[in-house]
Amino acid sequence: MSIVTPRVLKGFRDYLPEVELPRQAMLSTITKVFEGFGFGPLTTPALEYSEILLGKYGEEGDKLLYRFEDNGHRDVALRYDLTVPLARVIGQHGHLPQPFRRYQVAPVWRAEKPARGRFREFMQCDVDVVGEPSMRADAECMIVGLEVLAALEVPLAVMRVNNRRILDGLLEVAGVSGREATFAALRAIDKLPKIGRAKVEGELRQAVGLDDAQLATLFEGLETEVAAPSDLEALRSLVGETEQGAKGLDELAELLSIVEGAGYLDRVEVDLSIARGLDYYTATIYETFLVGHEAYGSVMSGGRYDGLMGMFMKQSVPAVGISLGVDRLISALVDLDAVIPRKTAADVYVLLFAAEDYGPNLKLARTLRAAGLGSELALKPARIGKQFRLAQRKGYRYVALHGESERADGVVVIKDLDSGEQQRLAIAQASEWAPRFAL
Amino acid sequence: MSIVTPRVLKGFRDYLPEVELPRQAMLSTITKVFEGFGFGPLTTPALEYSEILLGKYGEEGDKLLYRFEDNGHRDVALRYDLTVPLARVIGQHGHLPQPFRRYQVAPVWRAEKPARGRFREFMQCDVDVVGEPSMRADAECMIVGLEVLAALEVPLAVMRVNNRRILDGLLEVAGVSGREATFAALRAIDKLPKIGRAKVEGELRQAVGLDDAQLATLFEGLETEVAAPSDLEALRSLVGETEQGAKGLDELAELLSIVEGAGYLDRVEVDLSIARGLDYYTATIYETFLVGHEAYGSVMSGGRYDGLMGMFMKQSVPAVGISLGVDRLISALVDLDAVIPRKTAADVYVLLFAAEDYGPNLKLARTLRAAGLGSELALKPARIGKQFRLAQRKGYRYVALHGESERADGVVVIKDLDSGEQQRLAIAQASEWAPRFAL
Repeated sequence: MSIVTPRVLKGFRDYLPEVELPRQAMLSTITKVFEGFGFGPLTTPALEYSEILLGKYGEEGDKLLYRFEDNGHRDVALRYDLTVPLARVIGQHGHLPQPFRRYQVAPVWRAEKPARGRFREFMQCDVDVVGEPSMRADAECMIVGLEVLAALEVPLAVMRVNNRRILDGLLEVAGVSGREATFAALRAIDKLPKIGRAKVEGELRQAVGLDDAQLATLFEGLETEVAAPSDLEALRSLVGETEQGAKGLDELAELLSIVEGAGYLDRVEVDLSIARGLDYYTATIYETFLVGHEAYGSVMSGGRYDGLMGMFMKQSVPAVGISLGVDRLISALVDLDAVIPRKTAADVYVLLFAAEDYGPNLKLARTLRAAGLGSELALKPARIGKQFRLAQRKGYRYVALHGESERADGVVVIKDLDSGEQQRLAIAQASEWAPRFAL
Repeated sequence: MSIVTPRVLKGFRDYLPEVELPRQAMLSTITKVFEGFGFGPLTTPALEYSEILLGKYGEEGDKLLYRFEDNGHRDVALRYDLTVPLARVIGQHGHLPQPFRRYQVAPVWRAEKPARGRFREFMQCDVDVVGEPSMRADAECMIVGLEVLAALEVPLAVMRVNNRRILDGLLEVAGVSGREATFAALRAIDKLPKIGRAKVEGELRQAVGLDDAQLATLFEGLETEVAAPSDLEALRSLVGETEQGAKGLDELAELLSIVEGAGYLDRVEVDLSIARGLDYYTATIYETFLVGHEAYGSVMSGGRYDGLMGMFMKQSVPAVGISLGVDRLISALVDLDAVIPRKTAADVYVLLFAAEDYGPNLKLARTLRAAGLGSELALKPARIGKQFRLAQRKGYRYVALHGESERADGVVVIKDLDSGEQQRLAIAQASEWAPRFAL
């Protein structure tokens, strides 16, 4: 048999242990926060009937599906996101008590043109509350997101919040009407932080046909500074006459009052120019940026989408969610030198002097592990210097030495490869000293 | 748009939170044990070039691949197991330090005929040591498996171990020769615990053409009782003359001496009739059964396969691994009422008396979470009885009450829905009493 060249598909990648260790630690921190809010894990199949996914992501999305005929001639596709499968679950399992809180952390597949930071297989990390129309659910999603960032020790994150209805009211006042013009305007506004007012104005003139007076009205709203929730009242005179505008202001004020009551207002800013690219948002929308590093884009976004969840049912179901861009966040944290490092799976590396020491080493490791100290055992007896170098190459700071004389005394020697210091420690007291060497 | 009927593909399934909560808790316990031995996580793509997978699982396996042409006309397939992708990684990333310890817990896809307990998408949970030829690696894989079962509190598990070379020697002595006859004989022997000696003898007569004398020789070996490692010596007279038999006995004796030195011999039994169905094992093989519940089959199996890892390289690479049948194990534990139950993601359910209490409830929850008590908040103010019932339906034992009067006193009332008892507790002391209510 000739040897096949080992390679991965374009747009796909292996996560080797050195990358996957800190990544898994982050994912586990994230899910712990989700669960602390009562969100339960949901796992759905990678493959769905194509009809479940088709027509949900626009024409462009349909083309990006990994779609094929299976051995039983079924038309199937790999999931494209986690939201449509959630909607299917809500439609299919009628007995789920609502409000239904779930999280899902899982890969999705899109046949996009690969580019720097854009992959065909990537992780999504979503929480959603299904079945609750009040702003309390919106506040909870924002707060669970903020707590995730706090748990990950992400520096200087700020969440910018808006309400689509306020933008709808503003567009109505500025004389923009019709679904198509509205979405074109929203897409232009969405670019404001990236390309600036002048270019957005240009796009609004060209694509939506706005004139100077309309633009002035629109930007008066978009650029209203809301330093405190009470500043929202200034917008009443501008959009309060429209049904959508008034409702959006009420909702946003209610949301801010909950966030304030819970003590999270210091990390939240109102930004009336936040629009979000996706069509399906209906009310609250939010994005999260790293202050001073806005170029990474939003690391966590979401909002309320009251029309989407009911797509497989006769009745409509309110829903709100937040999605964490895990891989984007990790890239940013790596660049900012703020990722919590984790180079090794275990805490100490136990050297092997001679083959017959291996059984006793396993016995030692059993005690160390019970004391909370993960222990990787050297499998090959080799010169001690070589073993030190291998331990360092693997990323270990501490090595354990446990030869014949240490065994006779019931001790283990722990050597710090950074400082060169070593300590003789009684194995019987492992549970007392072990925590000092844990990662 | 007409409503599409929400459904999953045959052989696939949703894991709703009530099922996924204990399952994720188990998976997290398992990976913690793996990491405690220094195994690092590896994540590989769900899709591979078909040529990477084809021809590795036999003709039958090739037919079970989910294989298709992607949008770029590449011949691709969903992974069928985690071992071939590991071999690809070993071949592709030449710099990995060996011995290389990795674990991978991930779904695989096989277009099998669905049956009770057999799915087309299922989880594999593998650890492997690549690059170490000594029995120390085999011992480590067995011990990591035993520690996983101990951490999961699996009752009465026993690992049965054998060495393929001993079987090879035995077959040689019994006069079975040639690759095809050997594998046919191994497959028949593999059925011994399920169908018994009489039927296996019948199969060996028919498929391999063995006569009475040959069968007597073979079963003398297969049924040798090895109560202690020293009993292995009794086999020397039978198979010690063959090169494979002698080597197999040496290896198994060495393996047992390591396992004994490490203190795990009480959970390990030699069973010379263990054969394992797969062709690629070369030496050590093991399977794990729940005593008194052997009908579930082996919940954890593996062995040494020195030929397989080098399939994408010019040189051969020794390897040994163990694979946990997570879903089979969970089914068994559920039936035995031994699964560690986990009904809710959070620990307590915080009631909502009036909408305006929600902000203060969030504040309370923040303190409870910081004290280690996951807190799910009621989102809808409703009559208190209705909220108690919802909490119970969700699976909560403890609910927290935190109305206006409790807030004024800086306390929270925790009610035990099982006993009806309730306690007034000072919020400022949460970190002291919180652990009592944690799951």
